Amino acid sequence: MHTTESLRDIPPALQSKSLHLLTENTPNGKKVQILLEELRIANQITWETHLIDLESEEQKKDWFLALNPNGRIPLLYDNTPDLPICVMESSAILIYLHENFDKDKIFGFDTADERSQAFQWLFFWHAAAPIQGQTRHFSDRLGESFLYVNTRLRNEMLRIYSVLDDHLSGKHRYSITRDYIAGAGVGKYSIADIGTWPHVRAWRSLGFSHDDMLAYPHLLEWISRVADRPGVQIGISDKYDSEENPSLIVRGI
Amino acid sequence: MHTTESLRDIPPALQSKSLHLLTENTPNGKKVQILLEELRIANQITWETHLIDLESEEQKKDWFLALNPNGRIPLLYDNTPDLPICVMESSAILIYLHENFDKDKIFGFDTADERSQAFQWLFFWHAAAPIQGQTRHFSDRLGESFLYVNTRLRNEMLRIYSVLDDHLSGKHRYSITRDYIAGAGVGKYSIADIGTWPHVRAWRSLGFSHDDMLAYPHLLEWISRVADRPGVQIGISDKYDSEENPSLIVRGI
Ligand SMILES: N[C@@H](CCC(=O)N[C@@H](CS)C(=O)NCC(=O)O)C(=O)O
Ligand SMILES: N[C@@H](CCC(=O)N[C@@H](CS)C(=O)NCC(=O)O)C(=O)O
Repeated sequence: MHTTESLRDIPPALQSKSLHLLTENTPNGKKVQILLEELRIANQITWETHLIDLESEEQKKDWFLALNPNGRIPLLYDNTPDLPICVMESSAILIYLHENFDKDKIFGFDTADERSQAFQWLFFWHAAAPIQGQTRHFSDRLGESFLYVNTRLRNEMLRIYSVLDDHLSGKHRYSITRDYIAGAGVGKYSIADIGTWPHVRAWRSLGFSHDDMLAYPHLLEWISRVADRPGVQIGISDKYDSEENPSLIVRGI
Repeated sequence: MHTTESLRDIPPALQSKSLHLLTENTPNGKKVQILLEELRIANQITWETHLIDLESEEQKKDWFLALNPNGRIPLLYDNTPDLPICVMESSAILIYLHENFDKDKIFGFDTADERSQAFQWLFFWHAAAPIQGQTRHFSDRLGESFLYVNTRLRNEMLRIYSVLDDHLSGKHRYSITRDYIAGAGVGKYSIADIGTWPHVRAWRSLGFSHDDMLAYPHLLEWISRVADRPGVQIGISDKYDSEENPSLIVRGI
């Protein structure tokens, strides 16, 4: 719980008693943007968006660290209860939004098995995201001395793609091809897909070619399937671009 | 859901209608071992332990991949319901055990805020664990060409330690020093601590010295505080060592 003092210095824009998203249009930001847009389309939610200028390191300022000690976006600041609630870590934000605002459980599940499936795949990707971050970082660093680390990271990313592709294909466990990551039968579009998609779709940015990806046909189909959703399209749109919408940028006082 | 066929080939040892843990005595295995031992001490649970020989790649065999497509330990195989439930990803296993077997919520929380805090820190560490894995891997690789990657990874680990230390110290948000990671006031020992501790305590294996760690006094105190618990001590003990207990090793048929 926060002391009132430590939250004294938050920007005035966050002081209204509503739900606030602090984001930038990166993969981790996009997954929360997508779930919020999906919930808006389903008439479940309203919120205010605030864009954080990562380049000027706004996320390392004291006011931001009081809300998220990890100094990263996305951050959800739920100022609707009497005592505001801060939620860091993109996947934890998805679960929080699902548990507290998705009353009809549209983007999650009821049974212990399926509910856990959604969590398992959220964690699976949450451990893959740092590997993806390192892979992207080193993909620009060519030359002999980076060969070992580049090969190691690329191979791990390809292994991760193959785990997802095998899962969607039904190869190891299910007898049928799945449409979505979690849920019985062909699966149901859920927070598990939303948590995974913004990263996986960005395979080009890691230096992989379309030929590399042909080994994962079920994954490529799933990328397109999710991309077709209106909520996804608006969740990754210019609406969240700070150059298009400079008035949404928030800074400390 | 599994088809009966795909689970046909599981080892006989897993076929009893009880709760089965498939593990090895590594940090990811230890966190689940600890929660199970804590629940046993609290009289909430019984289960069967099976050790997986990672060196012989048992975790990449078909029977194992049908249970966990990621081909890694730990894995929980809950054969108590009519349709067995497979749970992969250490942090998702902690949540599953807490939600389904920790009836009195001893190791978790009731309020939306605290419940989310536990999830947030579980995810925080779940994204730190792959960085720790890479840091350890490269810490053995000395020499000029690994200087850049070693420095990069070590700095990120130290940043992660400082986020935890600042959080425990109350620096950014709370006015008091915390005993545990999640929960109101000084916090309560929970799945958030259990998910974090087996990795963080192993800082020596990353090549850090005690002098390096003196910058994180609250974290060092927390490591000792958690280490003192009987459930933790038995959860990381020889009981889970395959050389001590070769009869617990399970293999496909
Ligand atoms: N594990 C975190 C990762 C968040 C993250 O890496 N955010 C990036 C943008 S995608 C960021 O804020 N970077 C700026 C920084 O680290 O200072 C999550 O899932 O929310
Ligand atoms: N994100 C996974 C990581 C599990 C993991 O890395 N397990 C290691 C042992 S600590 C393993 O099974 N390694 C063998 C392999 O990858 O083949 C989790 O939290 O469960």
